[in-house]
Amino acid sequence: MANLTGKSIIGFQPGGEGDPTVFGVNPVTGELLQPGYAAVSEAELNRAVELAADAFEVFGKTSGTDKAAFLRKIADNIEAIGDDLARLAPQETGLPEGRIRMETGRTCGQLRLFASVAEEGTWVDARIDLADPERVPVPKPDVRSMERPLGPVAVFCASNFPLAFSVAGGDTASALAAGCPIVVKAHHSHPGTAELVGQAVTAAVRDCGLPEGTFSLVYGPGRETGSALVRHPAIKAAGLTGSRAGGQALMKLAADRPEPIPFYAEMSSINPVFILPGALAERSEQLAAGLHGSMTLGVGQFCTNPGLTILDSTTDIEPFVAKLAELVGGSSGATMLNPGISAAYDSGAGALGGNDAVEAVALGQTGDGQCQAGAALFRTSAEAFLSDESLSAELFGPSTLMVTHDGADKMLALAKSLEGQLTATVHGTAADLDANCELLEVLETKVGRVVINAFPTGVEVCHAMVHGGPFPATSDGRSTSVGTRAIHRFTRLVCYQGFPDALLPVELRESNPLGIRRLVDGEPH
Amino acid sequence: MANLTGKSIIGFQPGGEGDPTVFGVNPVTGELLQPGYAAVSEAELNRAVELAADAFEVFGKTSGTDKAAFLRKIADNIEAIGDDLARLAPQETGLPEGRIRMETGRTCGQLRLFASVAEEGTWVDARIDLADPERVPVPKPDVRSMERPLGPVAVFCASNFPLAFSVAGGDTASALAAGCPIVVKAHHSHPGTAELVGQAVTAAVRDCGLPEGTFSLVYGPGRETGSALVRHPAIKAAGLTGSRAGGQALMKLAADRPEPIPFYAEMSSINPVFILPGALAERSEQLAAGLHGSMTLGVGQFCTNPGLTILDSTTDIEPFVAKLAELVGGSSGATMLNPGISAAYDSGAGALGGNDAVEAVALGQTGDGQCQAGAALFRTSAEAFLSDESLSAELFGPSTLMVTHDGADKMLALAKSLEGQLTATVHGTAADLDANCELLEVLETKVGRVVINAFPTGVEVCHAMVHGGPFPATSDGRSTSVGTRAIHRFTRLVCYQGFPDALLPVELRESNPLGIRRLVDGEPH
Repeated sequence: MANLTGKSIIGFQPGGEGDPTVFGVNPVTGELLQPGYAAVSEAELNRAVELAADAFEVFGKTSGTDKAAFLRKIADNIEAIGDDLARLAPQETGLPEGRIRMETGRTCGQLRLFASVAEEGTWVDARIDLADPERVPVPKPDVRSMERPLGPVAVFCASNFPLAFSVAGGDTASALAAGCPIVVKAHHSHPGTAELVGQAVTAAVRDCGLPEGTFSLVYGPGRETGSALVRHPAIKAAGLTGSRAGGQALMKLAADRPEPIPFYAEMSSINPVFILPGALAERSEQLAAGLHGSMTLGVGQFCTNPGLTILDSTTDIEPFVAKLAELVGGSSGATMLNPGISAAYDSGAGALGGNDAVEAVALGQTGDGQCQAGAALFRTSAEAFLSDESLSAELFGPSTLMVTHDGADKMLALAKSLEGQLTATVHGTAADLDANCELLEVLETKVGRVVINAFPTGVEVCHAMVHGGPFPATSDGRSTSVGTRAIHRFTRLVCYQGFPDALLPVELRESNPLGIRRLVDGEPH
Repeated sequence: MANLTGKSIIGFQPGGEGDPTVFGVNPVTGELLQPGYAAVSEAELNRAVELAADAFEVFGKTSGTDKAAFLRKIADNIEAIGDDLARLAPQETGLPEGRIRMETGRTCGQLRLFASVAEEGTWVDARIDLADPERVPVPKPDVRSMERPLGPVAVFCASNFPLAFSVAGGDTASALAAGCPIVVKAHHSHPGTAELVGQAVTAAVRDCGLPEGTFSLVYGPGRETGSALVRHPAIKAAGLTGSRAGGQALMKLAADRPEPIPFYAEMSSINPVFILPGALAERSEQLAAGLHGSMTLGVGQFCTNPGLTILDSTTDIEPFVAKLAELVGGSSGATMLNPGISAAYDSGAGALGGNDAVEAVALGQTGDGQCQAGAALFRTSAEAFLSDESLSAELFGPSTLMVTHDGADKMLALAKSLEGQLTATVHGTAADLDANCELLEVLETKVGRVVINAFPTGVEVCHAMVHGGPFPATSDGRSTSVGTRAIHRFTRLVCYQGFPDALLPVELRESNPLGIRRLVDGEPH
């Protein structure tokens, strides 16, 4: 790829003078991809963050219209290199070109959605309580407030979404829309893709006349570069999609700083699917096909992969199990993202299959080459699941563990035993659902999204989406990393009391020049 | 007081079988007040939290109308014991009866404000994205979401607001309005007042037919009882107004739990007041009188006490300093809340006065009896302030430190040097303010509320108020503990995908039975 430089991007300058240590790896062939990337030095990292802090003084006050133009320019620039991305990203990730093209579309869609949110402007939750100088015993002051950006944000790229949760992904789009400059840490699993997108963002910064430090992209080992980024005093928040171990380590760093900062990590989820008896009796084959599609989608490398399937063995589940086993057994192999993820899947699936209480019901085929994953279907009992914590650990890849139980009480016990999850799914007829309201009530306390009669993969990017959930699904179950509410992760409330109109942010001025929806004396206006 | 039992309240049962160890102390006389309170046992504390967890299954789904009735009943019950509170609280806190009556009014006002928020219902941020089964390549699902209560919340009473930030104060009102049962830890500084209010809340729980664990009130040492409460796995968030040391210790416990939880502590603030030259020239006497009133209000025992006053010594500040010195010197003594706070003020003021770079400009009178505080006015230079961290520590009490500088650059350096604060205040003429936009911009990044031409004490309880600010003013600068937005501290987002209408929370049903404002496909409805 002629336009890859192998350099970090520190504001408008290339970074990384040392020897290249970060190389993409073609997961099929094991081939090291060129160019390699040098890790940023401490000085370079500091410079990226300091530039971001300087940029915040301007970018934090940039109008919604200008932020929207910037986000749209990023989207345009990414679309313009769609063919390059569709060539390079599959080499780095093993993902097929079609997936990369779709993910590119989603990425640009996200950027444009946040552009529309920034441009429209109501997101800031502007509130005005008008003065009443006549009030006794004390006059009432004029009090106005709104959400303002937090400051420079660290964004960590995800391995499993080389575009939609990487350099210009959801965390980036929402942080920029809020008015926060960002320093992105590239993922070693797709360094070239990261650079291509980083160039597209940098060009947009220049084209839109925004300050240099609005965006930087740094390469380096997570343990050093990532930690240094989270610890830097000028970083005011961070977002990550990654593993539980990595997420928790950085969470702890963020909480242990002299000034603790919000840290949004989306970490670990096994996304239970409860199949109720009526639904199973009514559409067993369809459910097996749907579950198979969901668990193998993207080689099972989605945070919302249905890793747990819960079945009532007092009804006839065997046709469903047989059909799912047939589909899993017939699945062709596929390439996982990188050798680390592939090795973890192999070892996790091996451990599960080797557990005395677990039956390996079906194993799919594996293809030629390295990093090949075969789909896997396991089965155990509710008793075994409840007594062995290891069975509820996330196995990242195309597998699901069926857990059979003997009726509603045990099913509720299973639901109550779960840690926090991104999603829970229930398949049921109307009668099933009416009879299992308590299940829905329990699941609501465990997850960010409850899905009825569909599958958890395929997270719709929209205003109402919640891609979050209680710990350890995320580090902060109050928030979402997908959907327009993601912008609120990167803001704080600021109140202006007794301000002359001209010194107020435009969102709070008397004449409401932006025409946004506001709360005035508690009433919508 | 005949109706004080000296017992914790564990749901509907009295707790605390051991010997009484927590006694109120009349700060004037040093007299131990009866009855004493036994610390709760571990079993009692666990029972309070377990009752709260059980109660959550019902209370977390209680309608806004019913929560509003409950909050109003609490307010009515507190008003009904207004005379008892006005007799007892002054004995425990040294605060005058008039202040207690005013604070009782504020407390009931807060409860009724949150009642109106819960009843109206729009606060849940209900969002609906409608399905589009025809969409290609994949159908669009029906996605709906809203804020739901987090679960049982621990509330820590503040010493300095025996009503408005204690048993039925702002944290309680906002947590209950959200649908979270609470376990309140009483403050040792006003145990009887806490019990009276606790009885009023418990009666409201019974009267409204709510589950037993909706409210508990526990007594015990902060280090053991408070820590155990924050560590209990069923507690899902906590709120505290207190000291920096205490707040940070509990923050760390909350972050280090196996399941970290949100912890909202309002801790430490010196609330800088910048007086610009034009304003000083125009109304020096008025500013001195206003500042004196603000710094001595409530014996300086407010989180928003103006502990730092910044003056431009290139203009004639001496008339202002002389007037303020006269007022401070003429201040009569007043009783602080308790011996610990009084001793800390004495020792802090002594250290400040003993600092070589600080001049004690004026010291007010002290009255007879114990726990007497005299107002204190100190003065130092910008250079000294910038080079000695100890000068920016909070001194809780009726004092302010004047810092003189030699013009705008040094003033900006002072502003930039500040840690996070609840408030910053600027006094200026229109010309002053126009000439000092950069000061306002810096202050906005440092504080939760910027006040122009008024004083920071007297926090208006309204929809737009922000009583928060970056660390260490609070543990979570995204939030506010005063004003209706405080409810959002105790919620999480939950998304319902593909739900039959009847299984949705009423807020999300198609017909919008509550008539709340919602976002449908991104548009207000």
